[in-house]
Amino acid sequence: MIIPVILSGGAGTRLWPASRKGYPKPFLDFDGSGSLLQKTWQRVAQLADSQLPLIITNRDYYFQSREQLKQVSGKADFLLEPVGRNTAPAILAAAHYVNERYGAEAVMLLVAADHLIHDQAAFARSAAAAARLAAQGKLVTFGIKPQFAHTGFGYIQAGDAIAGSEGCHQVTSFHEKPDLAKAERMLAEGGYFWNSGMFCCTAGQMLAEFAEHAAHVSDAVRQCWDVSRADNEHWHMFALDQDSFGKCPDISVDYAVVEKSANVAMVGAGFDWSDIGSWDAVAALGEQALPENVINIDSQDCYFQTGKRVVAAIGLENLVVVDTPDALLISRKDRAQDVKKVVDRLKAEGSMLHEVHNTMYRPWGSYTVLEEAAGYKIKRIEVKPGQSLSLQMHHHRSEHWIVVSGMARVVNGDKEFLLGPNESTYIPAGHVHRLSNPGVIDLAIIEVQSGQYLEEDDIVRFEDHYGRQ
Amino acid sequence: MIIPVILSGGAGTRLWPASRKGYPKPFLDFDGSGSLLQKTWQRVAQLADSQLPLIITNRDYYFQSREQLKQVSGKADFLLEPVGRNTAPAILAAAHYVNERYGAEAVMLLVAADHLIHDQAAFARSAAAAARLAAQGKLVTFGIKPQFAHTGFGYIQAGDAIAGSEGCHQVTSFHEKPDLAKAERMLAEGGYFWNSGMFCCTAGQMLAEFAEHAAHVSDAVRQCWDVSRADNEHWHMFALDQDSFGKCPDISVDYAVVEKSANVAMVGAGFDWSDIGSWDAVAALGEQALPENVINIDSQDCYFQTGKRVVAAIGLENLVVVDTPDALLISRKDRAQDVKKVVDRLKAEGSMLHEVHNTMYRPWGSYTVLEEAAGYKIKRIEVKPGQSLSLQMHHHRSEHWIVVSGMARVVNGDKEFLLGPNESTYIPAGHVHRLSNPGVIDLAIIEVQSGQYLEEDDIVRFEDHYGRQ
Repeated sequence: MIIPVILSGGAGTRLWPASRKGYPKPFLDFDGSGSLLQKTWQRVAQLADSQLPLIITNRDYYFQSREQLKQVSGKADFLLEPVGRNTAPAILAAAHYVNERYGAEAVMLLVAADHLIHDQAAFARSAAAAARLAAQGKLVTFGIKPQFAHTGFGYIQAGDAIAGSEGCHQVTSFHEKPDLAKAERMLAEGGYFWNSGMFCCTAGQMLAEFAEHAAHVSDAVRQCWDVSRADNEHWHMFALDQDSFGKCPDISVDYAVVEKSANVAMVGAGFDWSDIGSWDAVAALGEQALPENVINIDSQDCYFQTGKRVVAAIGLENLVVVDTPDALLISRKDRAQDVKKVVDRLKAEGSMLHEVHNTMYRPWGSYTVLEEAAGYKIKRIEVKPGQSLSLQMHHHRSEHWIVVSGMARVVNGDKEFLLGPNESTYIPAGHVHRLSNPGVIDLAIIEVQSGQYLEEDDIVRFEDHYGRQ
Repeated sequence: MIIPVILSGGAGTRLWPASRKGYPKPFLDFDGSGSLLQKTWQRVAQLADSQLPLIITNRDYYFQSREQLKQVSGKADFLLEPVGRNTAPAILAAAHYVNERYGAEAVMLLVAADHLIHDQAAFARSAAAAARLAAQGKLVTFGIKPQFAHTGFGYIQAGDAIAGSEGCHQVTSFHEKPDLAKAERMLAEGGYFWNSGMFCCTAGQMLAEFAEHAAHVSDAVRQCWDVSRADNEHWHMFALDQDSFGKCPDISVDYAVVEKSANVAMVGAGFDWSDIGSWDAVAALGEQALPENVINIDSQDCYFQTGKRVVAAIGLENLVVVDTPDALLISRKDRAQDVKKVVDRLKAEGSMLHEVHNTMYRPWGSYTVLEEAAGYKIKRIEVKPGQSLSLQMHHHRSEHWIVVSGMARVVNGDKEFLLGPNESTYIPAGHVHRLSNPGVIDLAIIEVQSGQYLEEDDIVRFEDHYGRQ
């Protein structure tokens, strides 16, 4: 029995401005064929012997993740982190979850939600080989044959082949992210592999490895698990306790356990693999079909990700252009790593552009800021069928709501009524109000806020279907 | 007596996406120090002996031009073309205007609204020299000493110096835009100047030159003038008759008259000059102070014109980046001429992006389309103090108006009322309505249109202060 465990975490800073904290890398779709999360789900869900995948993610991403799965008719269980604590606490919590639900012998196949693999058959073969080793009590890593002297990955030195398991090796040593000279040496010498960050191990063995090599992590996560277990009635959306999870050490599973264990093995991946760490990696995925709204006059070797606007490119070479409603990136491909410097600059300037997009996702749907100026703000609000915003009140702003599609149920002060397309209502400051979609198609309204203070924190919530305060 | 005549015409195709038919090159401000039209007005208005400048422009640009002058506390008379007919009919109509108003001896100093000249003192000296020759009956051109073998200008071959007039020459010959080989020959040989498109001539002499060398233009413009004169009571906003102006030949003053006359002289310009024909010329104007919203990581020799969005530039060289709300241009500087190809492509695709911006200027103010989707359109409408939209009705759309600043007077069906900030009204399809600004500060409203057909041509005008139908 294999339980695919999808770690859906990292923000993907170097994929700014597409990737931001409010819409991180796993949600991105680079070629219209599905997001990284959707592709990862599809990759593991179709493995033989696989159970319903378990997704570990921040609780802020739960609704978006569920929505993305829905788009590919996918289902998964969720293990929700209240805060990010690197991979060790997340993986150990998953081990508790799997151990308790499926038993100590259940094999966890741990994969990242933001990697790209095309060769499904080869992936399935490697996963099956890893699962066999895991069932024998091994902590199995997946090594990727290096294509060049990459300095952004850890390396695994493979030892003797494991008899009877094609492509499987003992592990001689682990090496953290090397400098270029060391990376080149390892590449020339051979026998070194990129550490992909995927693992395979039984739940029981994972618990044991932590207990042996990282007692402080083991203790902290056990305390969190015990509290969380008492609080959660359902496995399908299992929330980790905030206080005790917050107290877990912020360290990686490699550092806490994998590099210390004498029990590790490596499967040499037979499949293609990219962690799509930056825009040059995206551009390298293959020949791009130019987006329709690019007017290209003699540009070569460029990658474009566009939005609604027309982009005219004249005589360009070797560039990445990423156009979003509020930010534009133009970078030489071989300098794409420096997107990190842009994000650092934004942080230093106190900008929010690295955290949020102008479309924000919420449990009930999304909103997009269309315009903001002194005294007013205009949003398009989309509410999914059957969903509802909280019953709320603002001290400093009035709101005009105009329905443009679908049907709204509106609470406005002591009145409750339905509002159809082209109908509007006015909610004075101080009025308790709620917007719901009682229908079966999406509801879209235009909201014009007026007032001297229009920030999101001027909200008093009286009741919320999603437990927000 | 010098009458500065400002020809405010050309669209400036190669300055797309900043320059478009609805907001052409003379209105552009490249460095925040004023638009080309404003700078041109300032340049000629301060000349000694100069009268109120006369601006010849398309009647569609009248309100915007007046607004731009107002911003620099400038005044001018206007001669309005109903359609564009190249420079010959425009200049001849101006000659009639000046002849009739100021007399045949009045000196016209004809300048383009979209050239840039920094050295005001040198310009004033050249203009004075030209005016003296013009008063002696010469048709004076301004020659610019070539800086390189430009193939985009006509050339003037200078002849003998005119005694007593420093920098003034007889003219030996005119040469239309040359190929590169010829341009290089002329540059090497010396004695050739770029034809700047500025002229100086008395009104009477200009009329005589046309009568002698271009009788068909002379006759057509005289007919237009006679009809127009009968229709216009005021000199300050003088409209040329549509039918008869439309029948004038579409040719340049160079071709019609200047190249044929034996009476021309040339002033060698003592001033710097740029016609800012394309983005590389804009970039060449000088070291740019990087806009605040550009995050530059190691880019060099680039020119940025940005809007509201952040632009991150990593490792770029020798590029021009022009960012507007609905279109983005990224071009190698030395390929900037090919912006024309982009505009050709847009035309071929039936796009309106080369004609209109998402902000449209109207006699009463402006509107900006904030969002457009199936079934609705959102605009921000700004009305200047004392101005008023037409009394109108739409068959297919309803409108929600929300005032966000200033005070509105609203006609809605059979009601008329005032609306202040944060107040709204709903105008059903079929209702006659009008929006006015009775106040002394700008009025801004958000309009949300609903309906199945939302184009600008669904409008029935009952009354309009600006004579529109």
